[in-house]
Amino acid sequence: MSAGGRVVLLLSCPDQRGVVAAVADFIARHGGNILDADQHVDVVDGQRLFFQRVEVARDGFGLAADEVAGALAPVAERFSMHVEVRDTDHLTPMAILASRQPHCLADLLVRWSSGELPAEVRVVVANHPDHAALCAGFGVPYVVHPVPDETGGSAGQEAAVLETLAAHDVELVVMARYMRILSPAAIARYPQRIINIHHSFLPAFAGASPYRQAHDRGVKLIGATAHYATDELDEGPIIDQDTVRVSHRDDVARLTRAGRDVEVTVLARAVRAHLEHRVLVHGRKTIVF
Amino acid sequence: MSAGGRVVLLLSCPDQRGVVAAVADFIARHGGNILDADQHVDVVDGQRLFFQRVEVARDGFGLAADEVAGALAPVAERFSMHVEVRDTDHLTPMAILASRQPHCLADLLVRWSSGELPAEVRVVVANHPDHAALCAGFGVPYVVHPVPDETGGSAGQEAAVLETLAAHDVELVVMARYMRILSPAAIARYPQRIINIHHSFLPAFAGASPYRQAHDRGVKLIGATAHYATDELDEGPIIDQDTVRVSHRDDVARLTRAGRDVEVTVLARAVRAHLEHRVLVHGRKTIVF
Amino acid sequence: MSAGGRVVLLLSCPDQRGVVAAVADFIARHGGNILDADQHVDVVDGQRLFFQRVEVARDGFGLAADEVAGALAPVAERFSMHVEVRDTDHLTPMAILASRQPHCLADLLVRWSSGELPAEVRVVVANHPDHAALCAGFGVPYVVHPVPDETGGSAGQEAAVLETLAAHDVELVVMARYMRILSPAAIARYPQRIINIHHSFLPAFAGASPYRQAHDRGVKLIGATAHYATDELDEGPIIDQDTVRVSHRDDVARLTRAGRDVEVTVLARAVRAHLEHRVLVHGRKTIVF
Amino acid sequence: MSAGGRVVLLLSCPDQRGVVAAVADFIARHGGNILDADQHVDVVDGQRLFFQRVEVARDGFGLAADEVAGALAPVAERFSMHVEVRDTDHLTPMAILASRQPHCLADLLVRWSSGELPAEVRVVVANHPDHAALCAGFGVPYVVHPVPDETGGSAGQEAAVLETLAAHDVELVVMARYMRILSPAAIARYPQRIINIHHSFLPAFAGASPYRQAHDRGVKLIGATAHYATDELDEGPIIDQDTVRVSHRDDVARLTRAGRDVEVTVLARAVRAHLEHRVLVHGRKTIVF
Repeated sequence: MSAGGRVVLLLSCPDQRGVVAAVADFIARHGGNILDADQHVDVVDGQRLFFQRVEVARDGFGLAADEVAGALAPVAERFSMHVEVRDTDHLTPMAILASRQPHCLADLLVRWSSGELPAEVRVVVANHPDHAALCAGFGVPYVVHPVPDETGGSAGQEAAVLETLAAHDVELVVMARYMRILSPAAIARYPQRIINIHHSFLPAFAGASPYRQAHDRGVKLIGATAHYATDELDEGPIIDQDTVRVSHRDDVARLTRAGRDVEVTVLARAVRAHLEHRVLVHGRKTIVF
Repeated sequence: MSAGGRVVLLLSCPDQRGVVAAVADFIARHGGNILDADQHVDVVDGQRLFFQRVEVARDGFGLAADEVAGALAPVAERFSMHVEVRDTDHLTPMAILASRQPHCLADLLVRWSSGELPAEVRVVVANHPDHAALCAGFGVPYVVHPVPDETGGSAGQEAAVLETLAAHDVELVVMARYMRILSPAAIARYPQRIINIHHSFLPAFAGASPYRQAHDRGVKLIGATAHYATDELDEGPIIDQDTVRVSHRDDVARLTRAGRDVEVTVLARAVRAHLEHRVLVHGRKTIVF
Repeated sequence: MSAGGRVVLLLSCPDQRGVVAAVADFIARHGGNILDADQHVDVVDGQRLFFQRVEVARDGFGLAADEVAGALAPVAERFSMHVEVRDTDHLTPMAILASRQPHCLADLLVRWSSGELPAEVRVVVANHPDHAALCAGFGVPYVVHPVPDETGGSAGQEAAVLETLAAHDVELVVMARYMRILSPAAIARYPQRIINIHHSFLPAFAGASPYRQAHDRGVKLIGATAHYATDELDEGPIIDQDTVRVSHRDDVARLTRAGRDVEVTVLARAVRAHLEHRVLVHGRKTIVF
Repeated sequence: MSAGGRVVLLLSCPDQRGVVAAVADFIARHGGNILDADQHVDVVDGQRLFFQRVEVARDGFGLAADEVAGALAPVAERFSMHVEVRDTDHLTPMAILASRQPHCLADLLVRWSSGELPAEVRVVVANHPDHAALCAGFGVPYVVHPVPDETGGSAGQEAAVLETLAAHDVELVVMARYMRILSPAAIARYPQRIINIHHSFLPAFAGASPYRQAHDRGVKLIGATAHYATDELDEGPIIDQDTVRVSHRDDVARLTRAGRDVEVTVLARAVRAHLEHRVLVHGRKTIVF
């Protein structure tokens, strides 16, 4: 499945008779061979919605990726269909934002350098100088925009980060334990293009030192959630989640480490799903094919 | 997704351009609304094979389940397609085979009585009388065909079991820790219609007392595999597998219990997938949609 | 590890030098052979607390279970130690409370009848008549105390339930998806002796139809938590937790089923840990050896 | 639990009355405070064996780590006890062996640089030059001993590797997907001091291209096993194992990637357990406290 370029179509519309046939017929008419197709009908707020992801072999397909939307327009119009098209040979330009903690950043760099992530990591932006050597080891530019001290506002710091992202012309921003909250204006520049990771617990713990609280409460699970950033903190569409079992033997340091391990795994899966064009978003919900 | 009767098509053929379009067009022409469709192209021995499962709402569809194969024949012929069609309102008649151990049997009965398994459990057949009260509690006929002692052959016992199965006209046979090996002739009567469960370990342990051996080897995982029975013992197409973590604290009794727990879960998932018509078999391999 | 009667000591005290030596010496002086011992020092609110579970072979031990606390009194006094002693041959008398849903009830009965739970299930109490045949199949008395309609108060129903529990002289009460909230007075009768199970989600969903909400939010995990009942609903000390992965393919019915599966597993593990005298409670936290 | 130096005792002997008391008494007599203790009685080949791991706070303990064995000698002699003693402030000197694949190597370096692994990574030895930049990024010496071509023997290459290990005076050797088989003589130099990782499948697949075989067989799980290297290839004492679920959607490339992910996790856990002095070996079996 991995060899050979492909064109990926991500489609969504109200569910209607004939939509699958119309899309399949469109692809067949242009000589396309469907290598993989996944579809799903979801009932949200009583409404039936159709989602589809189709992979077409580029070989033999009469349309380039950037010609598909135009050629598909009559079908899209007929079914009120939202259409996105990607070419798997296009490596998504991506930035990673980091703070002090290295685990998610380092893991993403390792996976990327192993060829696991179909992206082009153009820059790592941090508010601390700590990761310079690590990034150099992977040949990735490292830009530091420190957070000003108490007296200065942080608006300038965010502006500098946004400028760096713009200068590198990235399409995806991954917050790899970046401990700053982005402003709504910053998020609006990358709608469904910023992936964040945060730890999560049952029961939930508000306030500082969540691992300390989790320890004092004797939780038996530690979790992590990766989601698209939205204005509502930690409330964006969930891309992936997972948990690990812990026990009373895990002190706060070990709980924290277990939390880091699951954050790394969940963030990597979410970024990979995004980069493989497997994620469709509808409102506060994702479909991850 | 659960409400409303559906017609399920399970299709497989060599992968070819236009096959998705042809099927979708066929369904649309008969007024069918596709509620769910899953497809997969698999490369086996260098050959590209296409597998598809389509759920069509019965409401509005111009064909009854038993008319679909006939109407689809021209498409099937053109693509050398293997076709199976099911109606979700048809409850699969099913038998459960058991020996002494009750855990898989009891679990299946509980799930079935809770409405989780779209089946009609017509009979439980065992070689021991132990489960009579249990089956009575669920209102299921319980038939005992004891294994004769050393001097007698066991061919007669199997013949009696097969007769009972035939008398109840079942379509699916679940071996719920049934500790007898079925003859090739018996298996041939229910091709891909007998589901077996067995424990599994890494490393594998030949011979008697596998849990004793696993304990002495200090394994950290215990597993179970559910598969269709074939002539080659424990080598049939795998439907589901899972493992649980164990440790040195687990003595042989606890390892055995952990093994039972995972057997129960894996067998239930496999039976459910079969009854929901989600399993396609190709050679020694399954596609479980 | 399973053969042979044992005396189990559950000990807790402020952590001090010499406490392990003092307990080990006490057991050795009475001819006891320690078969298994687990200990843990926990830092809670800055205080160091010592917890220990010791299994002594009854064979050769000069004290019966009910003599241990008296003989150990000088040690206990010196270390301000809380002491509980159990004999593994004593089967804990237990009741199960149920409402309409059968899955947790049936699973507990199956495990109990398979010899997995060292208990004596004396009675099942429900507010619906639905499970009479099931309980009869396992030979367990089934008592129904229906909830009165709107006009009547429910205090009388709870009083009737408590009376039944008292009449059967149970030591452990398991709420197997019992959909009634017990009053503080009822809980006070069975301190750390009532185990409850509830589903849990990340993010959490308040109000009705949590599975509907979880579906609309696109969660990727469904969880369950087993805990001791306290006055604060669903906030008692956690005994066990687990999650299962779900996806957009799981509609509300399948999410609910996945939730039931994980509830069954988690509740069974928690009940088993309690019955094997593996759980120590400190404040809102458990140590599960 | 993590703060403050500790002395760790790893003890094993035939199970006897009074052994726990004798050890606890010894520690108390020298003013030691037991912070954590784990013990286990295992029945192997009908013999009862006692294993114990004790952590003593160095603060207040009258013995340095290297004095414990001498002082404990009378107790050890009386119980035929095998004794190992470690100081948690001693960072184990360690080497990593690698071939072409970077995933396990990079993950270990990341964890080590994050302070997760109490070791001193003194050298990375490989048979390919590929990882020079990566190791430079982490400030670790990188030594390449290429495998000679067909005509030359490989004995010289192993000798060079052993020389490098000796020159760096390492106590632990981690084979991070090192694709060479070490000779029995090499293994004998580091008894229970070489950790290896290998993928594992159910059913097992002999010969080349195991992921290809696993794909053709339709396995639903991919696993990994970390073990101490012994003369019998892949048969040494198991330290950790785990599995991940896969499906028909995973082609050979994705199966391989899933296998890499689980290898990374399992190897990291095994190395960490070893470095935290949590592993005791008895014959072909480990006790991992």
